[in-house]
Amino acid sequence: MTADLVIRNAIVVTCDEAGTVLRDGGLVVRGGRIARLGQSSELEQDAASAKTVVDAAGHILMPGLVNAHCHAADSLFRGLVEDLPLEPWLQKVWQAEGAILNPRTSHLGSVLGCAELLLSGVTSVMDMFWYPVETVRAARKVGMRVSTGGFFFDGPGVTGGDLQTRIADAEAFFEEFGKAEDVFPATLPHGAYTVGPENLKTAREIADRHGGLFSTHAAETKAEQDDIRGRYGSSVIRHLDYLDLLDEKTTLAHCVHLDDEEIEILARTGATVSHNPVSNLKLASGIARVPDMLEAGVNVALGTDGAISGNDLDMWMALRLAATLHKGARQSADAVSTPQALAMATMAGARALGAEDRIGSLETGKFADMILVDIRRPHAVPMFDPVTHLVYSTAKSDVRHVFVGGRQVVRDGVLTLHAIEETMDEVNRLVPRIAAAIA
Amino acid sequence: MTADLVIRNAIVVTCDEAGTVLRDGGLVVRGGRIARLGQSSELEQDAASAKTVVDAAGHILMPGLVNAHCHAADSLFRGLVEDLPLEPWLQKVWQAEGAILNPRTSHLGSVLGCAELLLSGVTSVMDMFWYPVETVRAARKVGMRVSTGGFFFDGPGVTGGDLQTRIADAEAFFEEFGKAEDVFPATLPHGAYTVGPENLKTAREIADRHGGLFSTHAAETKAEQDDIRGRYGSSVIRHLDYLDLLDEKTTLAHCVHLDDEEIEILARTGATVSHNPVSNLKLASGIARVPDMLEAGVNVALGTDGAISGNDLDMWMALRLAATLHKGARQSADAVSTPQALAMATMAGARALGAEDRIGSLETGKFADMILVDIRRPHAVPMFDPVTHLVYSTAKSDVRHVFVGGRQVVRDGVLTLHAIEETMDEVNRLVPRIAAAIA
Repeated sequence: MTADLVIRNAIVVTCDEAGTVLRDGGLVVRGGRIARLGQSSELEQDAASAKTVVDAAGHILMPGLVNAHCHAADSLFRGLVEDLPLEPWLQKVWQAEGAILNPRTSHLGSVLGCAELLLSGVTSVMDMFWYPVETVRAARKVGMRVSTGGFFFDGPGVTGGDLQTRIADAEAFFEEFGKAEDVFPATLPHGAYTVGPENLKTAREIADRHGGLFSTHAAETKAEQDDIRGRYGSSVIRHLDYLDLLDEKTTLAHCVHLDDEEIEILARTGATVSHNPVSNLKLASGIARVPDMLEAGVNVALGTDGAISGNDLDMWMALRLAATLHKGARQSADAVSTPQALAMATMAGARALGAEDRIGSLETGKFADMILVDIRRPHAVPMFDPVTHLVYSTAKSDVRHVFVGGRQVVRDGVLTLHAIEETMDEVNRLVPRIAAAIA
Repeated sequence: MTADLVIRNAIVVTCDEAGTVLRDGGLVVRGGRIARLGQSSELEQDAASAKTVVDAAGHILMPGLVNAHCHAADSLFRGLVEDLPLEPWLQKVWQAEGAILNPRTSHLGSVLGCAELLLSGVTSVMDMFWYPVETVRAARKVGMRVSTGGFFFDGPGVTGGDLQTRIADAEAFFEEFGKAEDVFPATLPHGAYTVGPENLKTAREIADRHGGLFSTHAAETKAEQDDIRGRYGSSVIRHLDYLDLLDEKTTLAHCVHLDDEEIEILARTGATVSHNPVSNLKLASGIARVPDMLEAGVNVALGTDGAISGNDLDMWMALRLAATLHKGARQSADAVSTPQALAMATMAGARALGAEDRIGSLETGKFADMILVDIRRPHAVPMFDPVTHLVYSTAKSDVRHVFVGGRQVVRDGVLTLHAIEETMDEVNRLVPRIAAAIA
C-alpha cells in the first residue's frame, strides 16, 4: 500500500515508555496514522512509492507537544496587566475580557494563540475559555487538536449566561464535537472558588454522561486555599475529592499549594496535574511541589497557561523550567530528571486528554502528530544526547516543520493553512479598545 | 556633517536612567557613536544625506544587552554532563576541558559562543576562560565587545601553567588590549575555593595597576560557603572583603548564598553581582536573593554563565527569569519590577564593565551598540508597553538586526562578518573526541 508520507534520516525521539531513540530513523504515515517506525535504511521501499518523502537530516523527529492548560484567546490581552498578584490581577483581566470578548474576538484571540502554539510544535492543547466552539474553529483553522468544551462560572461572566445556558452550551458542545477526531470534548468549570459545589457536580455529570474530560483550576494560590477552607472547611483538593470530581478524566491546573495528603489524593484518584511554571512564577503564585507529585505517582503534565499570565505560550520554556526550577528551588540536582520533564510535555499530556492510545509518542497506530526540530543552530550545537538537547537547548524557534495527522501544518516555520499576518493586523487594530477597557 | 547611519520609525527603548521611550523615534550615528536621538520626524534631514538609512517600523530599537558572566568557549561541551550538582559536575567538566582545550579549540568554542550571543542581541560580554586572547579574537571575528583577561587558577588546570605564567599572561593581555575600544581588560581568578588569598591579591594588583576590571565566582553554592568558612573562618564575601578585593571594579558571579551582612558589604563596596538564574536553577545551586540585593542598593547585573550549565547563552531567558523567578519564589508580585529586570540586562552590565559612559543605554555620545527586535510575531502580538514586552514576551529569535559601534554585525538574523556554518561543522567534527574524553 502506498504511503502518504515517509520521513527519513532523522534522529527519532519517540517519547515511548521505553524511551526509544533511533539515531538515524524515520516513519511511514498512512491514513493520518503512523504505519511503521524504523531505521532509515528499512524505509527505502516505502519511500520509493510514497506520495511525499521528507529528508529530515539535521533534525530531531519527535511527537507534537501536548499543552495541558491554556486560554488561547487571552493572547488578545498579552501584557495588558502586569506585576499584580493573582486576585487583583484577575479583577483587571476580567474587566478587559468583559469589555472586549464576544464570539468574534474570542475566535480572533484563539487563532492567534493556536498559531503561536502550533508554530512552536504544540499539536494538542487543553483550552479553557468562553465560547469554546470558537476555540475549536480557531484550532481547525490552523490545523491542531484541542480539548475544550462547556465553561462553567457562577457569575454572569463574559457571556452573561445563567446556569441553564451553561448546561445547554455544554450539552450542545458534546453533540457537535463528541465524535470528532481532532476534539477531546470536556466540561471546564473555572475553579472551586468561582463555581459552587452543585454546579461543579453538574459540569462533571455532563462530561461523564458523554464520556468526556473534566478540568478546572485548583490550588493555584495560598489565598485560594484559605478561601476554600473558609467556605467549605477543607482544602481545595479534599473539597474536590469529597465532591467525587477526581479521577483519570480530571485535569487540575496549577496545584501549587498542596499538603502531603492532597498529593496522595491526587495519586490515588489518578487525576492529572497541569504544571504551569512560567505562569506560577510570573503571577507570584509559588513553586509547585512537582518532585513530590512525581514521587507519589501523580500524572504531572505541562501547560503554558494563557498569554496574559505567561506572557506567551512557550511550551519549551515551560519544559526547561519543569526540568530546572525544582532543581534550583530544592538545591537538588535530581529533583526532576530530563526524561521525566520530557514525558510531562508529551505522554503525561496525552494521558490528561484521555488519548494516550492516539497521541503523546511516536508509536505504530498513533496519529502522525509530530514535529521536526532543527539541531543545527549556533545556540544548540553540539548535541551529545537528543533528550537532553530537547529539554535544555531547544528553543521554540528551532521547530521547523509540524504535522498533525500526517498533514503538514507548519512548513519552514510558517503555517500552511492560515495567513497569520491578517490575524496579527486585526489584533493590532483592537489594541486601543483593549487598552481603553481597563483605563 | 553626513551621518553614517540613521535608524527611523522605531519604538525606542533607551534604557536610560529616566526610562525614556520614544513611540516613533530613531537615532543618528557618526563615527561609531550616537550623535543624536529623536522623534522620527526630527531625523528627516539627517536621513536625507546619511550613508545608510534603516526603516525600523515594527521593531523596538534598544541598546545591545550586556552579559555579565559567561564562558563562551564552554559551548563546545554543551549538554555533555547533566543532572549533577555543581561540585561533581565541575570535576567532569574539568576532565573534558583538560582533554580537549588548547588555543585552537578554545578559539573555536569562543566563536560559537560569541556568535550565539551576538545573534541574540548581546553586544558586550564579560567572559572568563583559559586563553583569553582567543576569546578576544573570537569576539572580533563576529564583531562584539568583550571583557576578559588573565585567568587565575592555583592548580595546573588546562594550560599546565604556574603562577609566574599566569602573571605574565595577565600582564601581556593588558599590554595588548589595554587601549582597545572593543575590549574591557580584566583579571579573572576562578574563585576563592580554587585560588588562594595571595594569588587573588596578585590578580587584583595587576588589574589595579592597569586600571582594569576584576571578576571571580563567589558564593555559588552552600558547599562553597562551607568550604571557605572551613578554610578561612569567614564567609566568601567577608573573605573577599577582608582581602580588599571588592569595589566598583569587581564583578562577582552568582552570589546565591549570602547572609544579610554580606549583602550590606556588597552594597557598601559597590561591587557588582552577576545574577545567573538559568545556571543556578539547572545546577541546583539555589535562588539568589536578588530582591534583597536590589533593595540594599547592590548593582545586580545579569549573566548566562556558560552553555555547559545553561545549556545555552540565552540572555532573554535570563531576563525573563530575573523578572519572574523571585516573584514566584517569594510569592510577591513586586519582588523585581519590570524596569529593574531590564536595567540588569543593560545599564547594570555596563556599570559592571566600568563602561556606563559608553554602553548600556541609547544616549548621545555612547557607542552605537544597539539591536532591533521584531514585534510582529504571533507569540508577541499585541504589545501594550514596550518595556513589559521586552522582559516578558521577547524571545532571542525576535532579534533581527544588531549593530556594534554603528556597524551592522547581524542582518535579518544572520552574522555579517563570519560564516557560522563552518564553525558549527568544525565543532560537530570534535564531538566524538569530546564524548570520549569523559567516557
